[in-house]
Amino acid sequence: MRLVGIGGTFRKDSFSMGLLKAVKELLPEGITFEILDFKDFPPYNPDIEIPEEIKIFKDKIKQSDAVLFSTAEYNYSVPGNLKNAIDWASRPYGDNSFEDKPAAIISESTGQLGGSRAQYHLRQIMVFLNMHPINKPEAIVPFAQDKFDEDGKLTDEKTREKIKELLEALAKWAERLSI
Amino acid sequence: MRLVGIGGTFRKDSFSMGLLKAVKELLPEGITFEILDFKDFPPYNPDIEIPEEIKIFKDKIKQSDAVLFSTAEYNYSVPGNLKNAIDWASRPYGDNSFEDKPAAIISESTGQLGGSRAQYHLRQIMVFLNMHPINKPEAIVPFAQDKFDEDGKLTDEKTREKIKELLEALAKWAERLSI
Amino acid sequence: MRLVGIGGTFRKDSFSMGLLKAVKELLPEGITFEILDFKDFPPYNPDIEIPEEIKIFKDKIKQSDAVLFSTAEYNYSVPGNLKNAIDWASRPYGDNSFEDKPAAIISESTGQLGGSRAQYHLRQIMVFLNMHPINKPEAIVPFAQDKFDEDGKLTDEKTREKIKELLEALAKWAERLSI
Amino acid sequence: MRLVGIGGTFRKDSFSMGLLKAVKELLPEGITFEILDFKDFPPYNPDIEIPEEIKIFKDKIKQSDAVLFSTAEYNYSVPGNLKNAIDWASRPYGDNSFEDKPAAIISESTGQLGGSRAQYHLRQIMVFLNMHPINKPEAIVPFAQDKFDEDGKLTDEKTREKIKELLEALAKWAERLSI
Repeated sequence: MRLVGIGGTFRKDSFSMGLLKAVKELLPEGITFEILDFKDFPPYNPDIEIPEEIKIFKDKIKQSDAVLFSTAEYNYSVPGNLKNAIDWASRPYGDNSFEDKPAAIISESTGQLGGSRAQYHLRQIMVFLNMHPINKPEAIVPFAQDKFDEDGKLTDEKTREKIKELLEALAKWAERLSI
Repeated sequence: MRLVGIGGTFRKDSFSMGLLKAVKELLPEGITFEILDFKDFPPYNPDIEIPEEIKIFKDKIKQSDAVLFSTAEYNYSVPGNLKNAIDWASRPYGDNSFEDKPAAIISESTGQLGGSRAQYHLRQIMVFLNMHPINKPEAIVPFAQDKFDEDGKLTDEKTREKIKELLEALAKWAERLSI
Repeated sequence: MRLVGIGGTFRKDSFSMGLLKAVKELLPEGITFEILDFKDFPPYNPDIEIPEEIKIFKDKIKQSDAVLFSTAEYNYSVPGNLKNAIDWASRPYGDNSFEDKPAAIISESTGQLGGSRAQYHLRQIMVFLNMHPINKPEAIVPFAQDKFDEDGKLTDEKTREKIKELLEALAKWAERLSI
Repeated sequence: MRLVGIGGTFRKDSFSMGLLKAVKELLPEGITFEILDFKDFPPYNPDIEIPEEIKIFKDKIKQSDAVLFSTAEYNYSVPGNLKNAIDWASRPYGDNSFEDKPAAIISESTGQLGGSRAQYHLRQIMVFLNMHPINKPEAIVPFAQDKFDEDGKLTDEKTREKIKELLEALAKWAERLSI
């Protein structure tokens, strides 16, 4: 299974990026994983020609078997950055790179709710994208600042365990859908 | 009352921008209106120094008495562009430009639902921003492509009427809150 | 495929019940369909013994291969009645009758938005229920009062076509998940 | 200020009812508070004559200056019971008892997220009801089972403090809106 990871805020030491990095260490056997970059994407505009880097982004999503989002929560929703990348990848009409993909979400915040509000907005977005997110487990990471060491490595054992479960559930789900 | 307008997608002939332009013609007496630009905002990143144009954006919001959002709907939510501008204006922590502002929303789409899904996501975002949106009327503009002439002028009489009502309700609400 | 239908408000000539009745006429071959009744369910209360009629309701859901919800929209959400039936069927903990079921939604209202707001609330509810709703087509029925004849029969051809598409998509989805 | 409280599940020792009882002890001066009962309401049905107890419920809401909801979370949304009471009080059309009322929400659950998902659904419901909920503070009570003593009294100091803040903010907001 080829899994791609989309997410991470743009600050150094981004927790949502740290979670994607942890995924690399926690992959079940038989899964390859690539974190996709969207740092230099311009604001979505259908009038401009689609930049080369976005074509590559779209191709990598299309060639994947499943998509993993790792999202922070800004203002009780998905960060504008991440939404902008999704807007590019879903267009032009008739060329939605996410079409029919199995998916899973990890969210984090520095507060009690762990980015969960962003998860449910992202789930509504996925209805339009025609993606199929798993329901369980939900990987919601509260108090993210306490769960990484100084080098940005995810050290919280419970969170690592949860991510492993998520990846296993996603692998099973993708297989179930692929047949 | 000083009203600022935030929204509009970045394509030429954007309908949500067209609606903001229509607002200019439909203003009740005693209201000044400025459409704020956020076209060249970089992706939100707390590590970079806040650009001058964003400082100006934030100041204009702070000095306003009310905020009017005009939103398209991308992937059943607010466009990433618009969310990115909101993310900038709400930060850094302790410097949320939207704090305690009365607000209203206009949404549009080319389909039956008129961007309403983006409205409810925006409303949840406004909880964090501590804004006070009016509830009625809701300005939801379906089939937007049929409501403008060739020069991008809003010609649909029913929609013009609805926007007038919205502006009047917002003016009353802002006055009620200001006392 | 055994499909069960849940929904309908309790007024005579309920449109959401009318839509479930139309489903009976529009079934693709190989699907059996039963509309489940929940009219006399008491308010959910874990302290009372689960009534016999609710045990039957739960069993019928468990024995089904897919669930079709038909919902009106009350106050921008799912009717309390319908939610109460869902609350019963999802409990007690460890005995969620909806577990892992494929699903689809039809919504209606007498206004422009066709109950769509209830659909997205219902979708969030289905995350907890661990159901798998199809994404497309979305069966959203606006101006429901214009789409039935005097006997409560759904006569609007476009809506009948949409329901057929929905049922076919659900049948395919249920088959894909069952393997 | 006359405040009414709506909520509480129907099981003995309901935490959401326990929170409403705590409100009684934590009232700022000058506020009267009544918990409204809706235990025996039939399922909403516009064909039946509105029962006497519901007329009384509606009148008490109308005569109040503000409404406090205390909600559990069932299946990631508002309990069907509570929604049914809201459906009754908002009808018939033209007789919405909640019209223009200031409001606040307390939510609880036995898990990490404290019923927050029910809060945002309730907020969307309040758009239709034309209510004006405060945004801050948000009273979200996670792990509710740890916060009451054996007699059902709220003993958690932090939660008591939060409720006090909520009531003070609501009183200010109601006063601001009333002028």
